[in-house]
Amino acid sequence: MIKRASNDHPIHELLAKRWSPYAFDGRPVPKADLLSLFEAARWAASSYNEQPWSYIVATKEEPAEFEKLLSCLVEGNQGWAKAAPVLAIGVASLHFKLNGKPNKAAIHDLGLAACSLTFEATARGLAVHQMIGILPERARELYAIPQGYEAVTGIAIGYAGDPNQLPDHLKQRDLAPRTRKPLGDFLFGGTWGSPSSWARVIP
Amino acid sequence: MIKRASNDHPIHELLAKRWSPYAFDGRPVPKADLLSLFEAARWAASSYNEQPWSYIVATKEEPAEFEKLLSCLVEGNQGWAKAAPVLAIGVASLHFKLNGKPNKAAIHDLGLAACSLTFEATARGLAVHQMIGILPERARELYAIPQGYEAVTGIAIGYAGDPNQLPDHLKQRDLAPRTRKPLGDFLFGGTWGSPSSWARVIP
Repeated sequence: MIKRASNDHPIHELLAKRWSPYAFDGRPVPKADLLSLFEAARWAASSYNEQPWSYIVATKEEPAEFEKLLSCLVEGNQGWAKAAPVLAIGVASLHFKLNGKPNKAAIHDLGLAACSLTFEATARGLAVHQMIGILPERARELYAIPQGYEAVTGIAIGYAGDPNQLPDHLKQRDLAPRTRKPLGDFLFGGTWGSPSSWARVIP
Repeated sequence: MIKRASNDHPIHELLAKRWSPYAFDGRPVPKADLLSLFEAARWAASSYNEQPWSYIVATKEEPAEFEKLLSCLVEGNQGWAKAAPVLAIGVASLHFKLNGKPNKAAIHDLGLAACSLTFEATARGLAVHQMIGILPERARELYAIPQGYEAVTGIAIGYAGDPNQLPDHLKQRDLAPRTRKPLGDFLFGGTWGSPSSWARVIP
């Protein structure tokens, strides 16, 4: 299933094609592709090159590990995410290794890495659906995540599947077009809420 | 200047080529390109499609606006960032519009949008250097950023320049190869700190 952005200005094809399906088919992800996804995350930018991201990953080829990771998602996400062949938890390190000071960019930079991972996935015909709806303290307990680290996101990885396999409320989401607020609603200059003069060319 | 990643597994060319220069040349960024950069941010994923990102943007074509934005960066960043033709501040909305509840994903999703913007920039031969070193309260005051929103990042946008224009300590950074910890250091399965079985194929 293809769900292109209805963009107002040209953007790279892989950004226009990226979307977050609820339906995944069961086809496993080749290991080489998975490694490239995390390699893409590895080369993301980060404040002071701290690379504050870590990932716990489970594939369906190890059912017990997969169930364990699935149990760290909130119930509403478990329902659809269990169809994905790969699940991951994105973990942020909250302090700089060098001096122990809080890293204000940690969660932001986890997002940079996640986006790189997703971009690489799109390039390989894969889809990624990220979730903030996880159980961080359950993840900490099950995986012995140390203090100073925080489980932030769940990540489902696989091939987009048939929306007809979904319960109705999720099927509707997968079938609905992608929507975004207009550029002029969030691109400001001079003062909050008013477009900068160069952006006044926006329709 | 090209500064490719020394990646261990194949990644998309645009991810391999992305880097964050300190040296920018003064060439202005065409408005059409700038609009596409923010359009790319617009189509990023976000929790509940909240799109918690906003941007304040200033170009050198409006010197007073540019100086105003520059003054929101910490001094160490002002030194090099003033050479970039475009500066922006990334702002996160911390609560869901729908119900006013805290959006735990806000800062993370600002990162997703920033990465999309950066990817689009790389595709257009542009470079982006993000900074967490900004003065959020100065930005709030100067731009009347409302409560519930937070200035999080500074973003310099332009064409990578000649490192020889930089003071020595920054020149060294631009000339040094890009480095990252190995994949095995942050890709876990089963328990924290140990690789998942599929990742044991990692060199």
